[in-house]
Order: sequence, then structure tokens, then C-alpha cells
Amino acid sequence: MLREQVKKWRHVFKLDPAKPITDDAIHQIATSNTDAIIIGGTDDITFQNTAYLLSKLRNYSIPYYQEISTSTSLVPGFTGYLTPTIFNTNDAKWILGIHHQTIKAFGSFIPWDQVILEAYVVLNPDAKVAKRTNANTNQQISDVIAYARMAEWLQIPIFYVEYSGTYGLVDLVREVSPILQNTHFCYGGGISNQQQAEEMAAWADMVVVGNLIYDDLNQAIQTVKWIKSIKKRGES
Amino acid sequence: MLREQVKKWRHVFKLDPAKPITDDAIHQIATSNTDAIIIGGTDDITFQNTAYLLSKLRNYSIPYYQEISTSTSLVPGFTGYLTPTIFNTNDAKWILGIHHQTIKAFGSFIPWDQVILEAYVVLNPDAKVAKRTNANTNQQISDVIAYARMAEWLQIPIFYVEYSGTYGLVDLVREVSPILQNTHFCYGGGISNQQQAEEMAAWADMVVVGNLIYDDLNQAIQTVKWIKSIKKRGES
Repeated sequence: MLREQVKKWRHVFKLDPAKPITDDAIHQIATSNTDAIIIGGTDDITFQNTAYLLSKLRNYSIPYYQEISTSTSLVPGFTGYLTPTIFNTNDAKWILGIHHQTIKAFGSFIPWDQVILEAYVVLNPDAKVAKRTNANTNQQISDVIAYARMAEWLQIPIFYVEYSGTYGLVDLVREVSPILQNTHFCYGGGISNQQQAEEMAAWADMVVVGNLIYDDLNQAIQTVKWIKSIKKRGES
Repeated sequence: MLREQVKKWRHVFKLDPAKPITDDAIHQIATSNTDAIIIGGTDDITFQNTAYLLSKLRNYSIPYYQEISTSTSLVPGFTGYLTPTIFNTNDAKWILGIHHQTIKAFGSFIPWDQVILEAYVVLNPDAKVAKRTNANTNQQISDVIAYARMAEWLQIPIFYVEYSGTYGLVDLVREVSPILQNTHFCYGGGISNQQQAEEMAAWADMVVVGNLIYDDLNQAIQTVKWIKSIKKRGES
């Protein structure tokens, strides 16, 4: 099952369909030894720009996943689909509302075993995703620990601490880490150098690198070996 | 695991701690051949009135579950705990908000394997539970089918169609029935005679009888045999 494969991911690149990228950059990313490529973003995601990236990635053997944020942008042909539920919002639409709408629209045509739920806690108040989802980013570490316990109890495959656009609090990631045993613990946000990559890789199961692809591709490619050379603490 | 035991329930009585009940009535219910007793309600639920019912039920071998609606009324000593998530509300508090608060308060002390999630769709606009949870009761059958698919996908143990206080739409229960394969399909609301008991038992895995206990105890006791003598359609 894809659900079990996802739990082996250690390093993942996230491509934003709205941002221009060269064929050479795609080639470097797809052959970087990363575990998977996620395609998704917040603004200006269309069927066309998503399908364009998919057509490029099809030349490579790496798994490619679409992260779905609205029901209109779903593109067939991906290895799998990641669907976020935002834990720290008061807006039901971003918890399970979009899932419900999508399921109502596509019903029995959905390939359920390819669709993986991600529980997000969005923590950077300046990020577009925080504004879009009305996330309550003012969370204590104890709040995030409780969200992590909830994800574990609900058997959600991925728990995603998202600092999109800024580097997060290592203390928070360290304290959340031991709570998650079966749920895969994902960190994303602001990774731009070796120290940051190694710090987060010590406590998260999986680290997502996104913006750095567009800011400094060479540095982004190096995050693969930085993160994969670190052993997560507490793992035997 | 309790989660698997719950999926065998066919008939369940629901006792409201806020309503007076005699020892004799409790005795009749606990020895009625029902599969479990759920203790829970909407108004005036306290630690005291819940613990009182628990103390009476402890004399019997039947499983007794507390259905938790706020973080203050949790009483230790039950066989297990049922925690609702309301699918058809826009109020995040009633989706996972109370779960998060409760987990933050009790943390690692929670006996996770005893806590069972129920996905509710609340459909009677006049019910107290609908008003309390700001449920959007104006649902088409296709909406409820999509909620059922979502519960099945999320691997939620129980999907609860709740008409609390009134008898529900048999067409809706019939159409939802085949969607739920691993998730246990529960119907509750307004069962007061043999025909109703048999109609809902033909399509739901499990039928809850509540108000009838207080309106006509003798009739309520008879629902056990009415429901258990009917075979659910589509089951081999």
C-alpha cells in the first residue's frame, strides 16, 4: 500500500506548479536521490501547470504525488495524492469540508488506496497557506503535542508541521518527535543550509524542501545528502 | 481490541444521565440481551449523574460505554469511551476541537485503545444535539453518502446517522448502507414500534434505542428481539 511507502520517506522535494522551472532543474531534482516529489502550492494552481510538471516527471522513476487543496485541480496520473486536513483552523472547510465536496463530486471513482491524508499544523502566520486556511498559528508546544497525539490516535499517515516560508522552532519539533510512533512526522519550512537540514532531520521522520529549489537549486540538491546522512534520534 | 468488539454491536440502549430511571428499569435493560449500553446526552450531564448510572451498571456483565461530549464530564471506569466528531457542522469545536482540548488536558493518561471515534451526521433540525453543535441538517442523500465514504476512507470505527427525537428517512439509511464495509453503520432516532425497528435493522449494522426507554420501557425492551431477529440486507 502507498500508505506504507509514504512512511519510508526521509527527504522530499515540493514543486510549486505556479513557479517556472527549467527542464534541467527538474532533471537534477528527479535524479537527486530524494524519496518523492510533491506537487502543490497555494496560489494559481491550475490543471494545466500541474499537468505540465507531471508530464516532465513521467520520464523518471521517482514517485510523484499531487497535494490537493481544492477539488478543481485534481490531475489524474500521479503515483498518489496527498490531501491535507488543517488541524489548527476554525474553518470547517479546511478540516474535512473540501474532502467532503471532493468525495461528493467524484464518489466511487476515487482510487482510495492512492489517497493519503496529511494532518497539518500551520505555524507561520505570514505564510500564504496560513492566511488562506485561517490557521490559528498562535500555538504553544503543548498544543502541537496534543495535535500530534490526536493524529496518532486517528491513525493519520502523516503529521505535517508546516512553517512554510520560514525556519521553525527546533524545540517544538524535538518535543513532538517522540509522540509520533505510527504516524510519519513531517517537517517543512525554511530549510536553506546544512545546519538547518541536520537539525530538523534529527527529530522529524521526513523533511520537505520547497522554496530553496527556486532560490538556490545547487544548495537544494545538497539537502538530500545532508538529511539522509543524519540518523533520526530515538530510532533504533 | 474494543474497536473490533464495537463493530459486532447490533442493538444498543442509550441512557441519558439527566433523566431519572428506577433500579428495576436498569435491571431490565442490562439483562435485555442488548449488546451494550451507552451513557450520554446533551443537557445537564454531570460527573455525578454519570457516575451514578455507572455504579448501577457495574453489577451487570454488559459492556457500558460513556459517550463524551465535553471535556469535563469524563468518568473513569467505563468499559470504553465513544467520542463523536460531527461531520455536518461548520463549527470546528464539534469536529476535532473538543478532542484536541481533551487530549491537551489529559495527554498521556488517556487509555487510547479504549477510545472509539464516532462520525456523526445529525439530521433532525429540532434535536438539541443539532442546535448545540450548529449542525447543518439540510443534507441531501448524496451528501450523506459522501460523508459515509469519507468515514470509510478515514477508517473511522462508527458512522452514526442521528435523527435524535424523530424517526428518520428509510431511503437515506438504505442508500448509505452499501457504502460502509469496514466502518460500522449506526442508526439512531425515534424507534418506537416493531415496524420501525425492523425497517432500520434491515439497513443499519446497529440500531440505538434511547427515548423509548423513558416513554415505554416494555416496548423498549422488545426492540432487542425485534432488531436481532432481522437480518441486515446485503450481509452474507
